[in-house]
Amino acid sequence: MTKITVAKGDGIGPEIMDATLKILQAAGAQLDIEEIEIGEKVYLNGNSSGIASDAWNSLRTTRVLLKSPVTTPQGGGFKSINVTIRKVLGLYANVRPCISYHPFVQTKHPVMDVVIVRENEEDLYAGIEHQQTDDVIQCLKLISKPGTEKIIRYAFEYAKAYNRKKVTCFTKDNIMKMTDGLFHKTFDEVGKEYPDIQKEHWIVDIGAAKLADTPEVFDVIVMPNLYGDILSDVAAQITGSVGLGGSANIGDGFAMFEAIHGSAPDIAGTDKANPSGLLLGAIQMLVHIGQKEVAETIQNAWLKTLEDGVHTADIFKSDNSHRLLGTQAFANAVIERL
Amino acid sequence: MTKITVAKGDGIGPEIMDATLKILQAAGAQLDIEEIEIGEKVYLNGNSSGIASDAWNSLRTTRVLLKSPVTTPQGGGFKSINVTIRKVLGLYANVRPCISYHPFVQTKHPVMDVVIVRENEEDLYAGIEHQQTDDVIQCLKLISKPGTEKIIRYAFEYAKAYNRKKVTCFTKDNIMKMTDGLFHKTFDEVGKEYPDIQKEHWIVDIGAAKLADTPEVFDVIVMPNLYGDILSDVAAQITGSVGLGGSANIGDGFAMFEAIHGSAPDIAGTDKANPSGLLLGAIQMLVHIGQKEVAETIQNAWLKTLEDGVHTADIFKSDNSHRLLGTQAFANAVIERL
Ligand SMILES: CC(C)[C@H](C(=O)O)[C@@H](O)C(=O)O
Ligand SMILES: CC(C)[C@H](C(=O)O)[C@@H](O)C(=O)O
Repeated sequence: MTKITVAKGDGIGPEIMDATLKILQAAGAQLDIEEIEIGEKVYLNGNSSGIASDAWNSLRTTRVLLKSPVTTPQGGGFKSINVTIRKVLGLYANVRPCISYHPFVQTKHPVMDVVIVRENEEDLYAGIEHQQTDDVIQCLKLISKPGTEKIIRYAFEYAKAYNRKKVTCFTKDNIMKMTDGLFHKTFDEVGKEYPDIQKEHWIVDIGAAKLADTPEVFDVIVMPNLYGDILSDVAAQITGSVGLGGSANIGDGFAMFEAIHGSAPDIAGTDKANPSGLLLGAIQMLVHIGQKEVAETIQNAWLKTLEDGVHTADIFKSDNSHRLLGTQAFANAVIERL
Repeated sequence: MTKITVAKGDGIGPEIMDATLKILQAAGAQLDIEEIEIGEKVYLNGNSSGIASDAWNSLRTTRVLLKSPVTTPQGGGFKSINVTIRKVLGLYANVRPCISYHPFVQTKHPVMDVVIVRENEEDLYAGIEHQQTDDVIQCLKLISKPGTEKIIRYAFEYAKAYNRKKVTCFTKDNIMKMTDGLFHKTFDEVGKEYPDIQKEHWIVDIGAAKLADTPEVFDVIVMPNLYGDILSDVAAQITGSVGLGGSANIGDGFAMFEAIHGSAPDIAGTDKANPSGLLLGAIQMLVHIGQKEVAETIQNAWLKTLEDGVHTADIFKSDNSHRLLGTQAFANAVIERL
């Protein structure tokens, strides 16, 4: 039994979490679940961080969080829960595999197996903004040496562990010569310790263009926080659906697992959402806590479900090759194939 | 006769400029050309801005620059020529049409007609960076009220002038609530003055994902500088080639026209480059200086060239439907169709 913390979140969060937990349980995952409340209700209760203290207590004990998307209310007073948790728990690496499941999932990019390793604590996400004059507002982009070294080493170690051939780095160091320059320089330096892995660097504009057009030429890509935010959404979406992206937020003592996508309030409560992103995050979690076999069992059953043409609405194609199911029925279809 | 300044640039710059000017001349454009030297040679002559004073003198007179890509040498000491010119001449709007020419140019996105209106002076491009401690480097993101109002108004005026139906705004104001928040708020406010134009806002991560996956749902998109840099490369590339993107940098008294792409040193001097990006920039220039008829003549001849399957290597498809030509021969093919 591994103790984990679970947050069902907002919008479609509760539905996709129920679906995911049902699959994990049916597959025999050894989990002792502690549920916490974060998000909308907590915010509206007057807590501007969206996270109450008993949630922190749970996280300090379990050190592992499986989290549904949450909604941050509009307006200046509320902090992003994602950013707070990443920062407080030191979750410096955000690992986002973006894989095509052609021909089972329709995509313009049938050959795609990219892992985006996103720096997860620094950059413009530090959230330091201020109004300098009536007319000018500033935001600070922070890049640190230790933070940069850590994420770049993580990307190379990940490539090594998963037998990946190439690590690419994206920066805009032709403009930000010091901040992005440090990221690029550190990539070159740390890269030398990994002679068997191919290395390349692209300026993020043309790199992003290549990623959107010919994702098949990439393998692992490491980049600063904000580029990683934008380009992991791009990469997940062009595999066929942003609903297929899972995400691992890794730190030295803590980890959080989630879907790449948001809380989609427009379809909340309609049993339409795809639970796959969160499920794939949960599979990363099972590997992380040492339950690799259960992780593989679920992964295979999920793949078999796609191969059988069983899909939620975001993937469904109305040409008789696909069967359309709701969130919970999709989860049951995965369970049948375990 | 309109006096303009021309800079042939570095890498493939001189080849694509020769091709472009040849077409402009054959079409009867009334241009009195003053050539300036900017870029590599000027940098290496000890001028860290890459622009000598006679170049500024020319620009002050002509107020219009047609510019090939330039190479900035590696290293901390050199400023980007693009950024300097945009800033010194106050070129606040960067207009980048990204259009698919299906079925003549192969693309995964056959229906695409997006104009990216990129703020062109502010954001992280201010280039204010400093090392705070041994471990931490900062870069300032600056967003100003007047700058934001100007670019957003420009986007709506552009949409109105070209009969476009919708203006979309991309920001990351769930994280940068003050800087990107101002951009979003200004979009909402200025948008009210244009009741006949549809308006929408997307967080840049999921907006970028939509743009890369279903560009056909967009029309005009306005965004801060750095997002615009990255996403205009994405949008141009997925039309079939980044070589098809032209770009207008517009200010109140000055304007600069260029290709979206860079100087591609790897193919410089090989007569392989596609001159279309710069040519489309030049067509935007002709409209700007009031030579609309010549602009249309060239645009039509260029389209006819593509329709006849005549292409440079970046577009060429070896299935007998296409004929492969070099840079200069492609220009001649356009001239034959004038
Ligand atoms: C919800 C938001 C704060 C978050 C981010 O910007 O990191 C999300 O987009 C993500 O990618 O996990
Ligand atoms: C060359 C570079 C400074 C420039 C930019 O970042 O703006 C280029 O990428 C562009 O898009 O015009």
